[in-house]
Amino acid sequence: MTKTPQRRRIYLAGPEVFLPNALELGAEKCRLVAEAGLEGVFPHDPKLKAQPAGNGVEAERIFFANTALLSSCDALIANLTPFRGVSADAGTVFELGFMFALRRPIAAYTNTAESYHARTAVFRDRAGFADADRPECEVEDHDLSDNLMLEMALIASGARLIRHPSPGAPDMTDLTAFRRCLEALAQRLGS
Amino acid sequence: MTKTPQRRRIYLAGPEVFLPNALELGAEKCRLVAEAGLEGVFPHDPKLKAQPAGNGVEAERIFFANTALLSSCDALIANLTPFRGVSADAGTVFELGFMFALRRPIAAYTNTAESYHARTAVFRDRAGFADADRPECEVEDHDLSDNLMLEMALIASGARLIRHPSPGAPDMTDLTAFRRCLEALAQRLGS
Repeated sequence: MTKTPQRRRIYLAGPEVFLPNALELGAEKCRLVAEAGLEGVFPHDPKLKAQPAGNGVEAERIFFANTALLSSCDALIANLTPFRGVSADAGTVFELGFMFALRRPIAAYTNTAESYHARTAVFRDRAGFADADRPECEVEDHDLSDNLMLEMALIASGARLIRHPSPGAPDMTDLTAFRRCLEALAQRLGS
Repeated sequence: MTKTPQRRRIYLAGPEVFLPNALELGAEKCRLVAEAGLEGVFPHDPKLKAQPAGNGVEAERIFFANTALLSSCDALIANLTPFRGVSADAGTVFELGFMFALRRPIAAYTNTAESYHARTAVFRDRAGFADADRPECEVEDHDLSDNLMLEMALIASGARLIRHPSPGAPDMTDLTAFRRCLEALAQRLGS
């Protein structure tokens, strides 16, 4: 009896789950992951939203589905393109920290080439948005693309944040950087 | 021989580490934590910055210091007040995901009363900042204060996000919500 070896499962974290064509985008990512000899897991299940939702019930359902998927995966690729602020999507960052704590390989990319420091300067000039930042707050200047905890975790995991600017404003659906990130992860995993 | 029982160590995550008076703010938080019978651990060590810094060396030093402190702690309190965007500080969110994955008790607070949904609407109207958000992106509407992964992780951990608006714009140094959060955590830990 021979067994087909199970493909390593890769959790595909990113804010594209919020787009109307999320399923289509996820399917394309999963297709590329399969080409690399791995199995893509895209955390978007319309069934979770189709069920009756009470106060917080839908949020709970999505949370437990996502954490179950995370736990079932061998590694993670995070889309850290800035989302609703200077940094990456908060849910994606949470998932990055989660998988890093479990010592599973993490990888990530961003579709902007600008540093965190440069983006913060622009944000402070134009935002007019009431958050807790203050002019006297230090702005990390390590030539990194986001908070150092995210990028140094990637390095500690054996990766590095892949930066590739999409044309124009950062486009979270551009897959150029994702492909490079996937290629490097597949090599790390020996697939 | 009697041993003095070790106090449970609480990692105090939040963007106040970027303020010029971070040490003083951290000392005040640690004082309150000690009053509650626990030991506060504030991740800010000026010595890490005083050493010679090369390309990325300082970032690496801070990352490994922080993850070592996280690993040494029994629980975490996160300041999730919005910072440089709609969501909480990215480093703080990373640390929240990290401790949740290790199944250590997590607690958090935010010094704004507005929902994530309401803040996103304001951000989209006024920002003029090039991130990857798009008008057609779904905005979570679960009456939560941030991305559902963060808040539902708190609930799964036996807590809830404490919301208390500081007067005016969100003030990350206001400790009203922190005190409530600490009180609830001390009860959970039986201290």
